[in-house]
Amino acid sequence: MGAALRERGTSTVRMVGHGSSDNAASYGVYAFGLLPHWTAIRDSITLGVYYESDLDLRGSAVLALSQSGRTPDVIAYVERARGRGAFTIAVTNDPRSALADAAEAVLPLAAGPERAIAATKTYLNQVAALALLAACSAGRGREMVRNLRVIAEQVDALVPAIQPRIGTLAQAFAYVGRMFVIGRGVEFATARELALKLLETCRVAADSLTATDLAHGPVAALDPLFPVWAIASADEALPAVLDAAARASEMGATLVASGTAAEQVSNADHVVPVPLPPSPLLSPLLSIVPGQLFAHALALAKGLDADAPAGLSKVTLAR
Amino acid sequence: MGAALRERGTSTVRMVGHGSSDNAASYGVYAFGLLPHWTAIRDSITLGVYYESDLDLRGSAVLALSQSGRTPDVIAYVERARGRGAFTIAVTNDPRSALADAAEAVLPLAAGPERAIAATKTYLNQVAALALLAACSAGRGREMVRNLRVIAEQVDALVPAIQPRIGTLAQAFAYVGRMFVIGRGVEFATARELALKLLETCRVAADSLTATDLAHGPVAALDPLFPVWAIASADEALPAVLDAAARASEMGATLVASGTAAEQVSNADHVVPVPLPPSPLLSPLLSIVPGQLFAHALALAKGLDADAPAGLSKVTLAR
Repeated sequence: MGAALRERGTSTVRMVGHGSSDNAASYGVYAFGLLPHWTAIRDSITLGVYYESDLDLRGSAVLALSQSGRTPDVIAYVERARGRGAFTIAVTNDPRSALADAAEAVLPLAAGPERAIAATKTYLNQVAALALLAACSAGRGREMVRNLRVIAEQVDALVPAIQPRIGTLAQAFAYVGRMFVIGRGVEFATARELALKLLETCRVAADSLTATDLAHGPVAALDPLFPVWAIASADEALPAVLDAAARASEMGATLVASGTAAEQVSNADHVVPVPLPPSPLLSPLLSIVPGQLFAHALALAKGLDADAPAGLSKVTLAR
Repeated sequence: MGAALRERGTSTVRMVGHGSSDNAASYGVYAFGLLPHWTAIRDSITLGVYYESDLDLRGSAVLALSQSGRTPDVIAYVERARGRGAFTIAVTNDPRSALADAAEAVLPLAAGPERAIAATKTYLNQVAALALLAACSAGRGREMVRNLRVIAEQVDALVPAIQPRIGTLAQAFAYVGRMFVIGRGVEFATARELALKLLETCRVAADSLTATDLAHGPVAALDPLFPVWAIASADEALPAVLDAAARASEMGATLVASGTAAEQVSNADHVVPVPLPPSPLLSPLLSIVPGQLFAHALALAKGLDADAPAGLSKVTLAR
């Protein structure tokens, strides 16, 4: 499929999705930007589907992300883009879904049935699929397959290794009502996904911010009852994250650090490091794991049902 | 400058900025998408500045948004993009700033000195400047100038007309610690900007969401102590906003509705309508006004200094 993207003259990748799928798309911005050096964007669904704007889609490929393959406006976006000549690819867990039918090609996630409402393995598979497709587009597919195999083993080992510690950590946050999660670059997707999990399973008002945006206003809201979780991984964006974490700490916020460079966050009250991946681009596949385990443990500590939050259903048919 | 953008063969507009500037850029996505039908994106600063990715910038124009013109990574982004052939324009309140020096052209905001730390008139001028530049790019500059003159008069009349009511409304929210602000399409920028103002001046954990994203998870966090402010304006995206507001109401959330179609939000506990603009694309210039007044009144009700929040400075030099 990477070869097909090249042959079709792709220079812009337009990703669409909601919730966790949109968070995975945040990762895609970097995977495509860093591997084939293409501009990948989280495109506005509204501009085409609601406003029917007449955008030029030459040189555009569409990656439509939906776990169920049934999200109405994502399907509408794909139908419209395909009719206007874009190369459309459905990235979904259900290769027989309406979304898969609507798109020209399908990249099946093969995550298996999601038994809980909040997607976890689907998110990991979406991130891995975007990494693989970006690598194939750059002619580096084999190397990526090897690296993803290593990551799968690392995730398997990571879960039991940190689970008890995360359970204890979550106890300390049982009465927290609001949190920030900060990250930057490839780890901004991780920050967004952890914030969403805290919102939907733990009823915590959690907002994700790039490390730099924190300083442009939101830092003023912090206090000791408003903790900050920093995703700090070893890459070029790390200095910005360390700087933001220090500002949060100065405001008296409780600070949790995770990621491959978690130990470098000074003044962190809690540190949950993850192992180094075979390539820094893949750290989000490891960094989200402590967050997913934390959201589950915190929901339990709050007496909530993490698998079936109030007001949500597995397939979201909202406009 | 619109003619220059056309002559340079612009097809992609890359906007960069932090905080309120990035919120204004959310508006630019629609202004450029709907008027000259160009793809306008809130570009990743990290990809170029930190990761030094080798993106193709042919056909790209850069709009660098910064009130002070001193934001370090925005300046670095412009220097890099200009060196690689992009047409770079600084949109700033200080035409003698380092950012103005770094860019090929300057679009001065002429908002005058911002006396408070939280930008308000700069945000309005940024939105108006993006509307005007998009209209000029589509050869419709004169019509936009006329429309913006009407809007300026409408804003002048709106402030005294709603200020007393907003003051009373804010009293009822004095103990609120978390809020969602929802909007979609052109009004998503308004939702983001109101959430930021609530965070930075009122210490409310306020998150902005597209109306549809609310249903994809965050709705589960709502309860009667977690109010939702819906920006409902009369355009094609309104049905999605009305749908999301109804879901929030079902979860028991207190609901505030503002925007040009605020009266259409059923079950709203508080309604703050604004007048119809000469064109639906310009409704964000009116819709943000109740939000700005509310943030100011709520800060007063909470005993906070809205003009000088703790931990912030006028010029943000954070990485």
